[in-house]
Amino acid sequence: MLTMKDITRRFRVTPGTRLRLRKHDTAWAGDKDLQRLTTDALKEKARGFVEQNLVRLAEAQDRLASNDVWSVLVVLQAIDAAGKDGMIKHVMSGLNPQGCQVFSFKRPSEEELDHDFLWRYWRALPERGRIGIFNRSYYEETLVVRVHPEVLERQRLPPGPRDDEFWLARYEDINAFEKHLTRNGTLILKFFLNISKKEQKKRFMDRLDNPDKHWKFEMGDLHERAYWDQYQEAFEDTLTHTSTDFAPWWVIPSDNKWVSRALVSAILTESIQGLGLKPRKMTPAQLEVIDEGRRQLLAEP
Amino acid sequence: MLTMKDITRRFRVTPGTRLRLRKHDTAWAGDKDLQRLTTDALKEKARGFVEQNLVRLAEAQDRLASNDVWSVLVVLQAIDAAGKDGMIKHVMSGLNPQGCQVFSFKRPSEEELDHDFLWRYWRALPERGRIGIFNRSYYEETLVVRVHPEVLERQRLPPGPRDDEFWLARYEDINAFEKHLTRNGTLILKFFLNISKKEQKKRFMDRLDNPDKHWKFEMGDLHERAYWDQYQEAFEDTLTHTSTDFAPWWVIPSDNKWVSRALVSAILTESIQGLGLKPRKMTPAQLEVIDEGRRQLLAEP
Repeated sequence: MLTMKDITRRFRVTPGTRLRLRKHDTAWAGDKDLQRLTTDALKEKARGFVEQNLVRLAEAQDRLASNDVWSVLVVLQAIDAAGKDGMIKHVMSGLNPQGCQVFSFKRPSEEELDHDFLWRYWRALPERGRIGIFNRSYYEETLVVRVHPEVLERQRLPPGPRDDEFWLARYEDINAFEKHLTRNGTLILKFFLNISKKEQKKRFMDRLDNPDKHWKFEMGDLHERAYWDQYQEAFEDTLTHTSTDFAPWWVIPSDNKWVSRALVSAILTESIQGLGLKPRKMTPAQLEVIDEGRRQLLAEP
Repeated sequence: MLTMKDITRRFRVTPGTRLRLRKHDTAWAGDKDLQRLTTDALKEKARGFVEQNLVRLAEAQDRLASNDVWSVLVVLQAIDAAGKDGMIKHVMSGLNPQGCQVFSFKRPSEEELDHDFLWRYWRALPERGRIGIFNRSYYEETLVVRVHPEVLERQRLPPGPRDDEFWLARYEDINAFEKHLTRNGTLILKFFLNISKKEQKKRFMDRLDNPDKHWKFEMGDLHERAYWDQYQEAFEDTLTHTSTDFAPWWVIPSDNKWVSRALVSAILTESIQGLGLKPRKMTPAQLEVIDEGRRQLLAEP
């Protein structure tokens, strides 16, 4: 299997470099040594790997909770049908729901539009000790909002040109926001689930052909698909400017769900374990409380 | 094993009757037919049962989400160390975190105290399609608040006597709140995890003797233990007045964790399945959208 070093070299957007999505193979499914295996064997291997990671992740989650210092923010971004919901279901089910919270951001309310563009996301950040998952996030503010300027106009911003400078300023705001969070105890992990236009078509057809999946389909999905190239460009630009040492982006090949799940599961687990959290140590004063508690309980009639 | 009918007869607080906690055996661990088994065999059986239910619960959760009409509110109340956190971890881990949210209510903030006593809980209610778990809830407002009148005085209420009428009015407010929620699509399930004073002592000692569990102990826990009888009375009174046909209380024998988990898991699963949710049906207009989507996709170059 790949080491974390390999994964980093291959899938992390190196801060300060320009991301070129055409150099990322959306159908990547392991290097030569894995390609000797059948797809079924690979899938089985990947599933086992996700399950193993889940055990480690659950342990890491307990440490997060008992330390009550760090929180983890997982950002999931992708084009429609790339597998965000399935990622949460398959990689995160098994976590203790008490320490895990998922937010999906819908069309902003009037109240939200009456605030700056980070406001509604800020309110949903995970508390210390918890893992928060943003299923779409403030990155929509430089993705869908960039592709559809009319959305930007609903944001009631001060007048001014909406040129390159404008978007660079948004990236700067986001980077400053994330730096602030990181400094104050949030580990930020950002995943772009990368699929091909062909794979998206296949998945839409699957939803259309399968009555159980009909409810997942909206005409808007096809409307957005027509903007494929503009979205690819917006992703390239956004990821290029917001992959930082403190909050890097990962480009996850997602045409194969078992591949994307195994990779995200590995990066998530390694990163949280990388915090090096130890079981919480009691201070001498706290140990005295423990002793006093024991004395009182034992003295009960 | 017990049928749902047995469970209801035995553990549901019948609306309109007075609850007597002394008639509830906290150490109940199955009827005669189960008592032939060893404790280990029983525990194994219970664990398997919880796992089976989790599969059904996950299915029910998918239906909840795709229907997007109902939400489920699970209220957990208990004296300290009765196993609320463990209940969430063991009975609810495995649910899709995207459709599940847990709220623990701490000491109220100044902002919260500047509102009515239901306000902060109202804000945390689960969205349609989701399961929300309140780890402690608005029921604290007639439990800890009743046992410690000084907490009530911090709530900045209009002046007036804090007599029986006052508490009856709170029950009435809570019942009206729950009736409103039920009418508007929330299934409410309320569990009182019932342990004996002796079992609580054992669990506190375990926390005090086990360095890995030290962080769970606070001196306040012993302080509250001194009010054991007052709490029992407050629970009896609260559950008597707020167990209704639309939102009944369940008194769960919890001296044995495997018993309480199996029972809650069964009641939860049966109740959500009892909603009888069907896969979401498309309207003729929605089916036309599906057809149009297929046409458009197939017409792509």
